[in-house]
Amino acid sequence: MQYKRRQSTLRGLLAANRLDAVLVTHLPNVRYLCGFTGSAAAMLVTERNCCFFTDGRYSEQAKTEVQGAKIVVGRKSALLLAAEWLSKNRKRGGRWTLGVEAERLTLAACRRMKASLPSHLRLKFAPPLIERARMVKDVEEIQRIRDAVAMGARLFDQVLPTMRPSVKEIEIAAAMEQNAYNAGAEGMSFPTIIASGARSALPHGRASQAALPASGFVVCDFGVILAGYCSDQTRTVALGRTSPEARHAYEAVKEAQQAAIDAVRPGASFSKPDEVGRKLLKKRGLAQYFTHSTGHGVGLEIHEDPRLAAGQYECFRPGMVVTIEPGVYLPGKYGVRIEDMVLVTEDGCEVLTPTSKELLEV
Amino acid sequence: MQYKRRQSTLRGLLAANRLDAVLVTHLPNVRYLCGFTGSAAAMLVTERNCCFFTDGRYSEQAKTEVQGAKIVVGRKSALLLAAEWLSKNRKRGGRWTLGVEAERLTLAACRRMKASLPSHLRLKFAPPLIERARMVKDVEEIQRIRDAVAMGARLFDQVLPTMRPSVKEIEIAAAMEQNAYNAGAEGMSFPTIIASGARSALPHGRASQAALPASGFVVCDFGVILAGYCSDQTRTVALGRTSPEARHAYEAVKEAQQAAIDAVRPGASFSKPDEVGRKLLKKRGLAQYFTHSTGHGVGLEIHEDPRLAAGQYECFRPGMVVTIEPGVYLPGKYGVRIEDMVLVTEDGCEVLTPTSKELLEV
Repeated sequence: MQYKRRQSTLRGLLAANRLDAVLVTHLPNVRYLCGFTGSAAAMLVTERNCCFFTDGRYSEQAKTEVQGAKIVVGRKSALLLAAEWLSKNRKRGGRWTLGVEAERLTLAACRRMKASLPSHLRLKFAPPLIERARMVKDVEEIQRIRDAVAMGARLFDQVLPTMRPSVKEIEIAAAMEQNAYNAGAEGMSFPTIIASGARSALPHGRASQAALPASGFVVCDFGVILAGYCSDQTRTVALGRTSPEARHAYEAVKEAQQAAIDAVRPGASFSKPDEVGRKLLKKRGLAQYFTHSTGHGVGLEIHEDPRLAAGQYECFRPGMVVTIEPGVYLPGKYGVRIEDMVLVTEDGCEVLTPTSKELLEV
Repeated sequence: MQYKRRQSTLRGLLAANRLDAVLVTHLPNVRYLCGFTGSAAAMLVTERNCCFFTDGRYSEQAKTEVQGAKIVVGRKSALLLAAEWLSKNRKRGGRWTLGVEAERLTLAACRRMKASLPSHLRLKFAPPLIERARMVKDVEEIQRIRDAVAMGARLFDQVLPTMRPSVKEIEIAAAMEQNAYNAGAEGMSFPTIIASGARSALPHGRASQAALPASGFVVCDFGVILAGYCSDQTRTVALGRTSPEARHAYEAVKEAQQAAIDAVRPGASFSKPDEVGRKLLKKRGLAQYFTHSTGHGVGLEIHEDPRLAAGQYECFRPGMVVTIEPGVYLPGKYGVRIEDMVLVTEDGCEVLTPTSKELLEV
């Protein structure tokens, strides 16, 4: 990974954002910038250098992983180490502005840190500079995402024959996870959702001890983490006979999902796929049951920028990877969701998820 | 669970802490107070009532789960819903102080919330009232923790025979997780640590694709979540012949762990187990390799109060459940950690973890 290039890109953005430095505390951002995968770290990026902070548990791991940054290990939290380093190294000089990741830094951590900072240092909410850089994936990242998506799709193919009435949701989820680990995944992107029967109407119904019913939908939403990068996919499977009403809902979601995919291209706004998908569901009389947004970026995190929803005015650029996942949820009855991962290309997009979207009746 | 009693206990603490209300945003605290298990919620607790906020995804789940609180569902984030509710319901009146969970609330979320709050409302960092209440478990919680601990121990017994050279760390972890799900667990308390050979010297070495070596230690640190409550256990297994030096380290950690357990009793300070364990390791010449604290509370979260470390002056009370987990880590060579969960009783403590601590050579 091009860690040094990422660091220098960030350094190049500081002046224009009226920042003398950024204190990076969100761990996926730290990983993006220097490669560190542990669970306690901070990074200080100034125009001239990068400094990485962690505690004693990670001294060995930091030496192995961190690239392009000076490593400081201490007995305090990474945040306090950074604050102390600043107070030692920025003793003199005029007013100095430190950008903090306000979406990630808690009020209490900020107060503790301030107590160690020199008084001429001013804190400012930094814009999401790293999150924005992360939206566009480079070649190496795209390859990792392709690998994760392919593995996720294989997991689904493997468990599909086991989906039959009386099998527990959690058994299907557990089999997927076991297969994922055996195939080399670091973990699942999120707790696997296997939501059957009326539970399929819960947009976030994690796999439970419930047994699959004789008939009804099973929403399967899952993903793996492979070499740090996430996959995210949803398919809805039908058990037994599907009522005309349920089939209508399935086909409407499938159509809406395709329309949303077709709206992903460089220059189209992040809200466009949501707009066209919702419009199509409205035509089918189902818009009121589509209760979440259409998608989100995926990469080092399962949910990252951009957000594909109404009111998002920025535009797609080649290299972005997003989910397209409309769904409808009829409380107490059933739910349907279909989700692919999509790569924005120079002239449109490429659907990365290989799995068929025809209604699977098992 | 005694949700209403918990809510009324919290209400009874407001005045003494000079708060008119507390805004609860940390999800385990929300769950503790009202039973909601979803991933987006806030709760507002005033002296007179409790209000629960969530978004549209969770309207069904909230109706099923939330106890003792008025439910407000809206299209915004739970935090903003709470702020808007306050601005509608606290229009008039004098100065009003709202406690926030400063360890959990981000700078950015707080700024967004403030924009919706009436100006006569003052924000204050609330003391960790709920975290402190949660330290002492009630009868029902203790039973759930016992069940989780028993399941965790069984998982270890099940995979122990499979630990032999050339098996991958991740295969052992995956088997434990699969067995956990099949046995009814909601998930693992944290990513399972299976760290073998030189990797055992990484205190947080998650299971990797590495194969177990012909000889050396394997640190196994794992836990399950069962009915919302976590277990946490570590055992160190020896493969092949153990060098006298490594055996010395194992026995020293075992002795230190027992000494620390013996220091857990009502009235002893939270720092006592750490102090006696560290003293013993010092006698054995290993104190410099013990690079973390001795333990932590366990319950709805895998890490919760109290922290068992130097400088903690509060005292154990009956009903607290903590881990006792000293370890030594010799970089590049090996590591040893032994961890039990321990319940503070009226006159001492009860070790909940049933697994033997004799050195297991497989």
